[in-house]
Amino acid sequence: MSILSKFSPLAERYGRMRDSGADPFSIKFDDVLSSVEAVVNGRKTVLFGTNNYLGLTFDPHSVERSVEAIRMHGTGTTGSRIANGSYKGHEELEAALADFYGRKHCMVFSTGYQANLAMISTLVGQNDHLFLDADSHASIYDASRLGHAPVVRFRHNNPDDLAKRLNRLKDQPGDKLIVVEGIYSMLGDTAPLKEFVDVKREFGAYLLVDEAHSMGVLGEKGRGLAEREGVEDDVDFVVGTFSKSLASVGGYCVSSLDGFEILRIAARPYMFTASLPPAIVASTTAALETLRAEPQRREKLTANAERFYTGLRSAGFQVGPEANPIVAVILDKVDVAVAFWKRLVDEGMYLNLALPPATPSHQAFLRSSVSAAHTFEHIDFAVELMTRVGREFGLLPDNVTPFPARPVSAERLSARAATRPALRPAADVGAGMA
Amino acid sequence: MSILSKFSPLAERYGRMRDSGADPFSIKFDDVLSSVEAVVNGRKTVLFGTNNYLGLTFDPHSVERSVEAIRMHGTGTTGSRIANGSYKGHEELEAALADFYGRKHCMVFSTGYQANLAMISTLVGQNDHLFLDADSHASIYDASRLGHAPVVRFRHNNPDDLAKRLNRLKDQPGDKLIVVEGIYSMLGDTAPLKEFVDVKREFGAYLLVDEAHSMGVLGEKGRGLAEREGVEDDVDFVVGTFSKSLASVGGYCVSSLDGFEILRIAARPYMFTASLPPAIVASTTAALETLRAEPQRREKLTANAERFYTGLRSAGFQVGPEANPIVAVILDKVDVAVAFWKRLVDEGMYLNLALPPATPSHQAFLRSSVSAAHTFEHIDFAVELMTRVGREFGLLPDNVTPFPARPVSAERLSARAATRPALRPAADVGAGMA
Repeated sequence: MSILSKFSPLAERYGRMRDSGADPFSIKFDDVLSSVEAVVNGRKTVLFGTNNYLGLTFDPHSVERSVEAIRMHGTGTTGSRIANGSYKGHEELEAALADFYGRKHCMVFSTGYQANLAMISTLVGQNDHLFLDADSHASIYDASRLGHAPVVRFRHNNPDDLAKRLNRLKDQPGDKLIVVEGIYSMLGDTAPLKEFVDVKREFGAYLLVDEAHSMGVLGEKGRGLAEREGVEDDVDFVVGTFSKSLASVGGYCVSSLDGFEILRIAARPYMFTASLPPAIVASTTAALETLRAEPQRREKLTANAERFYTGLRSAGFQVGPEANPIVAVILDKVDVAVAFWKRLVDEGMYLNLALPPATPSHQAFLRSSVSAAHTFEHIDFAVELMTRVGREFGLLPDNVTPFPARPVSAERLSARAATRPALRPAADVGAGMA
Repeated sequence: MSILSKFSPLAERYGRMRDSGADPFSIKFDDVLSSVEAVVNGRKTVLFGTNNYLGLTFDPHSVERSVEAIRMHGTGTTGSRIANGSYKGHEELEAALADFYGRKHCMVFSTGYQANLAMISTLVGQNDHLFLDADSHASIYDASRLGHAPVVRFRHNNPDDLAKRLNRLKDQPGDKLIVVEGIYSMLGDTAPLKEFVDVKREFGAYLLVDEAHSMGVLGEKGRGLAEREGVEDDVDFVVGTFSKSLASVGGYCVSSLDGFEILRIAARPYMFTASLPPAIVASTTAALETLRAEPQRREKLTANAERFYTGLRSAGFQVGPEANPIVAVILDKVDVAVAFWKRLVDEGMYLNLALPPATPSHQAFLRSSVSAAHTFEHIDFAVELMTRVGREFGLLPDNVTPFPARPVSAERLSARAATRPALRPAADVGAGMA
């Protein structure tokens, strides 16, 4: 017995999975060959399990700027922004992000996790109310726990449910902050943002949108879902990350609200952490320049996502409601999902296995993310491999060919997603391993 | 009125300070010249406000390994360890840290803040108890809030008070976790670790030591306070950071407890954040090699710390109880501290201003940190400048010369530190600005 004994049930479930030969949470890359290829278990593997949406991790512009920054400004800052000061690079990155979004203010954080932690735990206090979509990312749930505001969860992507809950509290004093995401990380579905904006206006609430998975992906300029939906003026705070489209690590928040800068001496997860090193700041700034200068990357990403999503759907897989770079194949049984995942990795395709209760609907997902750096050959290889394995596993009708796409009513899929009953936090991935 | 109006009182206090010409929380480095020199407001400035203890930020070994890693493995991993896998570098760094500490296990985190958040919020749950030193770092307090265990605070550096509180709960079921720090970040004092270990043994508790400011600084091999005090076998978990002696960003925990690895799928601030980029992992690994290969850096650091501490104490300043690389000059009045700080920056010395309630004793501190990269000329420049300004401000007797050292009873200073009444969390730096 030790302080770690409380995790024995989890360890036993994990051990059983590993005994079956699959260890989806400890994958090791022997080498990384490009934005979308690595060596896994000695085998060249196509990566469908990263968030490398624009394929910029090896982009020469980012690499060279990063190298130059290390040589010029060193390997780290050895302290926080408030105690150790800001390097010019921190300020230039914040100015570049503010300019990209057309906002007055930007704060940069050391991780995307800490960006949500800082903003959400600080903006609302014990006299306010925080409204969270039930399928929110773990960092949003953790932020709500770190903060002091009462938390109200509403049904995923359901503006009517949000309105009902806001209405119940409409006579309460204090501020109301609504938090939603641009693209949800499990199913790849987007928030009905226009409708959320209507609700926000009706009740005089504030709106924070986490565009972690939609920045660089959606919108004519790549600013995310709020841009695509034409509601940027109604989004008070955009939070995002550097570890997806921008191919580094860190997070940010942009806003045009007066008084925003005071958060630098009020938000603890900003104040009490070392600032981002020069290499990271430089490659992120360079990647943002590339994102802006090369819209063709976003176009290629969209084409890849549609080809992959349509291919899987046509083959007969149950997929999420929309064709976005996150594509989830939904399977009912955890043991089947584990075996399926292992088979794909053994055949050279890496993707994520998401198990309940981390998944929103108590089902197991094979979660892929598509990159602009994938070729159509990569996409077709993945679709064909998944289709072949799906048939072998008896999950698909034998006579369906992946291409061309079989038309499936998007409305029907959306309706199903909107009404699924999941109202639980993104919990420990391992906690539900059966 | 907006959601940010709740920060108006803080903004007004901050505004008054800025009106006086001092903006200690928004310092900008126009350029960084070396580990200990930068350009601030157009002036070459000696840095005494970073945590660059070993002076490794520009070390060629770290710089070149970092450059190589970016070119070989890209600017980022674009995902978490559990979803996107581990690069070889992550595993090599974990193995190197485990080897350095002679422990079986090591987990690396994306920030030091998240290392504390992850470990402390996960190791103890609602059926356990968490015992925190009252002067704990903000990340430890935030971790205690994120977790579910009841929190018991004990008086700073007071093993008797801890024993009393443990005794009250000795019949309660569940695990008891004690958290202390190697060197405290404000006053530079060390924990009485042997006595804490006695208490831990008496009550069958677990002990976690945050060696953020003592790793690379204390102990024959630089492993920290637990090594220096010869009690490593009784420390169950060592947490540390990469953003101080190792000159990058990130954090770690080492332990030899069986079952430790399960925390990788149980600790949310580890699971739900992007992993460290190749550049950071590589420079950190290289810095750890340098730390081990060049003990003379630690010796120079110690000599610098003693020269600086003794110089200030001899001049008549009230300093912390021990000569460590963090040296705090304690001033009674906030407005005097602000003016003093501004004058030092104007004359080319950068250091930190710590104001209540972030300080443990409701006083204002001028907080310096010494580096192995400082020359004795840097140290003497700083001592002489602070002494001259201190005299001008009427804070010191005119006839005291900084060198040689005037003997001051360490016992008396220690006794004062042990009995000061502060029992409050490290709160918002800005919240107490007068």
